[in-house]
Amino acid sequence: MEDVSGHPNNLRMRAQKVRARVRSGELQQQTSGLAPGIVQGNIAIMPKDYANDFLRFCRLNPKPCPLIAVSLLGDSMLPELGDDIDIRSDVPMYRVFRNGEPVEDVSDIRHLWSDDLVTFVLGCSFSFEEALLEAGLPLRHIENGTDVSVFKTSIPTRSAGPFSGPLVVSMRPFSPVDAIRAIQITTRFPSVHGAPVHMGDPALIGIRDIASPDWGDVITLLPGEIPLFWACGVTPQTVIGNARPPFCITHKPSHMLITDRLNAEFSIL
Amino acid sequence: MEDVSGHPNNLRMRAQKVRARVRSGELQQQTSGLAPGIVQGNIAIMPKDYANDFLRFCRLNPKPCPLIAVSLLGDSMLPELGDDIDIRSDVPMYRVFRNGEPVEDVSDIRHLWSDDLVTFVLGCSFSFEEALLEAGLPLRHIENGTDVSVFKTSIPTRSAGPFSGPLVVSMRPFSPVDAIRAIQITTRFPSVHGAPVHMGDPALIGIRDIASPDWGDVITLLPGEIPLFWACGVTPQTVIGNARPPFCITHKPSHMLITDRLNAEFSIL
Repeated sequence: MEDVSGHPNNLRMRAQKVRARVRSGELQQQTSGLAPGIVQGNIAIMPKDYANDFLRFCRLNPKPCPLIAVSLLGDSMLPELGDDIDIRSDVPMYRVFRNGEPVEDVSDIRHLWSDDLVTFVLGCSFSFEEALLEAGLPLRHIENGTDVSVFKTSIPTRSAGPFSGPLVVSMRPFSPVDAIRAIQITTRFPSVHGAPVHMGDPALIGIRDIASPDWGDVITLLPGEIPLFWACGVTPQTVIGNARPPFCITHKPSHMLITDRLNAEFSIL
Repeated sequence: MEDVSGHPNNLRMRAQKVRARVRSGELQQQTSGLAPGIVQGNIAIMPKDYANDFLRFCRLNPKPCPLIAVSLLGDSMLPELGDDIDIRSDVPMYRVFRNGEPVEDVSDIRHLWSDDLVTFVLGCSFSFEEALLEAGLPLRHIENGTDVSVFKTSIPTRSAGPFSGPLVVSMRPFSPVDAIRAIQITTRFPSVHGAPVHMGDPALIGIRDIASPDWGDVITLLPGEIPLFWACGVTPQTVIGNARPPFCITHKPSHMLITDRLNAEFSIL
């Protein structure tokens, strides 16, 4: 019988089992809830000519682009995140872009790999959502079994070379007391988007209609609820679209890299 | 020339000079801004028969009643807060209550002291306001040179013996981004009211008109601002009024006890 206790070794062992199934091609689904306690990552794989500017973009915009690992040029391993993580095979589903346009989704990129590529891994909201749930805060999109609402805003990012574009945010509604608690909890996780960037009136950040998200699903606010807006990992995906590199690869949305790192390791408090 | 650096020894030395002027009767004014970096306290002096229930009330309601010192029965000194703090002379102005009604304000209570009394000192919002100002956040009531808006709410406190009544809150408005920051900063100071207890719609906590505070001055919200509500030291004053002890003494509002403790000592982060 599987040991389901929350000891770090068990959490890592279960994550490694899931990753082995990803590597073999058996598991190609989205990864939400698949590795409790474990950091999952957004992926961007860039040609060398774009990597330096993309790195600068992430450093200038740490809330939407919280870097948790950068590979060596041409090296597919990610030792910062685990002993045996090969970015060519360990993501359930990749999205391949040519000239900024998505051209195909594939479950393995060994045939696309070259010595010219650099991998970036960015923290993901799954980590802070787990912390919110553990604190007893309800997450409406999870209760509804839908995706979170994601919006383009009027807040610009700080550009770097060809990378520029608006900040993209995810929205989660809470009662006022839970909203205060959610700010406290997510503040503890700066490496996975951290505290919200806005709350309350959506129009103040250029969102015209909270019932029309640009990505994800509609979340209806209940009476008295306050919408909280977090910087979102869709931001780098949109700026990559704007930069139109000749070639790059990301994860397919919600199909994250499962690492060996614990969410608890990324809490600063 | 006075050394105005922020070294702890200088902060304490300046506080002790102010307290000496209070003790001599020379300084009877309100203490806002008088001792930078130093904890100031709300005061409640209770007869023995009420002291145990009041202590329980504070423990049950730590956000409005954050206890930072309790004296021994009949002992006027407060060694938790400084080497030479005598509660009979060191508050600029006291308010004397008989049967729950204020009967006089006096600058010294040596003539009223007895072996039957216990002193309670509660943290005060001056400490977290200083932290907010140091972080560059604007405080409207300070900019306006007025008092903060204070409201009775529909949130009950947890009662203890004769002590019961509604939570009283103070309101400070912020832009959404500053509101998030203000929650983070005040979270660091649980001994001086801590994080807000509510934000946004005042009606949700029984405040009918934000332009009609029950105490203090009106603060007008600017477009896009969110009102943040903190548990307030007026709460114990109102529950003392409800309990109607035959005799008790508090500070006159805004005329606080200046201690030897640093605000920085009360920050948990």
